[in-house]
Amino acid sequence: MDKTIGIFGGGQLGRMMAQAALPLNIQCTFFEAQQDCPAAALGHVFSSQAEHGLSAFIQSADVFSLEFENTPLEDVDALSQTKSIYPPRQALAIAQNRLSEKTLFNQLDIPVAPFKAVDSLDSLKQAVSELGLPIVLKTATGGYDGKGQFVLRQADQIEQAWAELGPAQSLIAESFVTFSREVSIIAVRGQNGEVKTWPLAENHHHHGILSHSIVPAPNSIDLQPVAQDYITRLLNHLNYVGVLTLELFVTEQGLFANEMAPRVHNSGHWSIEGAVCSQFENHIRAVAGLPLGSTDVIRPTVMVNIIGQHPKSEDVLALNGAHLHLYNKTEREGRKLGHITLMPVNSEDLVGLCRQLAQILPEPLALKADMTL
Amino acid sequence: MDKTIGIFGGGQLGRMMAQAALPLNIQCTFFEAQQDCPAAALGHVFSSQAEHGLSAFIQSADVFSLEFENTPLEDVDALSQTKSIYPPRQALAIAQNRLSEKTLFNQLDIPVAPFKAVDSLDSLKQAVSELGLPIVLKTATGGYDGKGQFVLRQADQIEQAWAELGPAQSLIAESFVTFSREVSIIAVRGQNGEVKTWPLAENHHHHGILSHSIVPAPNSIDLQPVAQDYITRLLNHLNYVGVLTLELFVTEQGLFANEMAPRVHNSGHWSIEGAVCSQFENHIRAVAGLPLGSTDVIRPTVMVNIIGQHPKSEDVLALNGAHLHLYNKTEREGRKLGHITLMPVNSEDLVGLCRQLAQILPEPLALKADMTL
Repeated sequence: MDKTIGIFGGGQLGRMMAQAALPLNIQCTFFEAQQDCPAAALGHVFSSQAEHGLSAFIQSADVFSLEFENTPLEDVDALSQTKSIYPPRQALAIAQNRLSEKTLFNQLDIPVAPFKAVDSLDSLKQAVSELGLPIVLKTATGGYDGKGQFVLRQADQIEQAWAELGPAQSLIAESFVTFSREVSIIAVRGQNGEVKTWPLAENHHHHGILSHSIVPAPNSIDLQPVAQDYITRLLNHLNYVGVLTLELFVTEQGLFANEMAPRVHNSGHWSIEGAVCSQFENHIRAVAGLPLGSTDVIRPTVMVNIIGQHPKSEDVLALNGAHLHLYNKTEREGRKLGHITLMPVNSEDLVGLCRQLAQILPEPLALKADMTL
Repeated sequence: MDKTIGIFGGGQLGRMMAQAALPLNIQCTFFEAQQDCPAAALGHVFSSQAEHGLSAFIQSADVFSLEFENTPLEDVDALSQTKSIYPPRQALAIAQNRLSEKTLFNQLDIPVAPFKAVDSLDSLKQAVSELGLPIVLKTATGGYDGKGQFVLRQADQIEQAWAELGPAQSLIAESFVTFSREVSIIAVRGQNGEVKTWPLAENHHHHGILSHSIVPAPNSIDLQPVAQDYITRLLNHLNYVGVLTLELFVTEQGLFANEMAPRVHNSGHWSIEGAVCSQFENHIRAVAGLPLGSTDVIRPTVMVNIIGQHPKSEDVLALNGAHLHLYNKTEREGRKLGHITLMPVNSEDLVGLCRQLAQILPEPLALKADMTL
């Protein structure tokens, strides 16, 4: 092996990074609580529960990365005494704090919904008077999928909202954004500062879980250069190395940044087949200090998540041009078990394939038997 | 995991099969002498040198396949008492014997160079008088890369040829074929009899080692249906399951079969990126009883072998649209260490990329800095 990359986390993102690394003679190791995690098939898993797990993990690799944006900063600091990690600590720290993140977007002139920091009942009242209602109140750190959030619609809810979230100490109050759709842009920056960007994905959710992504996002020719400009500002400002994802809302006033993820992203899984070089391979290339690959699209693609229950593999693989990626996870409601890439030779077949897939999946989410693209 | 496939052999072909199997939740195990073989990164290696190695291997998987056409038939027989192997024993037995193979080609009306069985000095003399000179005399079994062969140009060499090869007992005498180029066709047959064929590859050798393959083979529109017909006859006659390769000579009299390989093939490595579904994934799908994927070409592709010495990864990856596949093998003269797929977005760039690659590779083989395609 030419090099070993240690990855914080051993879920499907780590698994797919390691799959991309293998043909480059790059081995991965993982730091993860679950020994039978999806990445275990591809490299040694160092237990994050074991007494000297972290130091053993740090010794196991030449350079480090992560699949999990909540990787503890103290682990990163321990590591940084002897080794390098990409993306840099600063990017991770900012992505872990909604206030820092939105403040950075403001600083770089990337449009965001108006927001205010809240750390007391008084400052919450002040935020309500400045932003108007409704607002969404969130903890600055932690929380996901609607947890750690309070939607404040009427002034008489202020006390209740503060009672619920106040103990978190640091909160952010955000105005609502009216948007027609959600898109994401993924880019990669190399150690030499080179930046490459994949086309925008249009993301469809179902109860807060990503259902499917359409790439390139329909009607996105004018949006692409704007999104590309925003993410490039972030990458360069952070002296970033690796893959970064920026989620954006399409509004009547243009693109608004929602949040960034300092890692490969579910909305980029299409790139394994749909782009010349995938987000996983380019992330590995960047972390290993290798030249970046082309992010050109091969053909229009739809990526569909498998959530909660597995479809029959034979049903999926019978669809022309379908690629199946299973993560070797047991079934559980709401759990991401795998994804399917649809990339027919004739792009006109894409809608028909999506409709067929909607009938095959036990949980078709936002995929509909009568959908259009 | 949904299923485990046991593979005889653990070289780069097994490695790439296992890489294709993983996203389908199919695990591979391997039966191989070398514990640190290329496939070891992806599954357990059962030692073919250990006392109960074979029975442990047979217990390790649900269904079996191979990456090595000289898999001992007695191992296959031991296995077949309790489990299934694809391709079928009969295909393996025929591919292991040049006489059986050529006889089958004849039987199925697939053109081959005139040949005669030789098992005595008298029958050798008879073959020379019937076929004329020059002929090549080969052992029916074993031998590779020019070993176990004698090129008989003059009648006074007959005694010497017999002295050298006669001890092998079963020989084949073949007329020389004058050919302009060598091509190969790869096809896959599913358990339900469905057949899919990739386009012809044009193969360029250097001192008997495959240097590079160009896909689709230039000027092969008329050859493709003929080759497809030949390989389909073989697949159906053998009730074959999995990937089969047929090497062919392009002659003034049309295509002549050279030999078949009952496995995935070096000249099909381009299909990982260049086809919708690769030879590796389709082989795994067939062995696992899953529907076959499309063999459509995505874009014209050149696959180049890395032989003997590694190039610098950063030099290869800097080429636009280049994909690097290393096998984690140590350097040794003449050894296949990896391959590179060139598949630029603009096919016109293909020649230029080949020329650039010729300057990067320590062993450019038949790749030339002034080559044309």
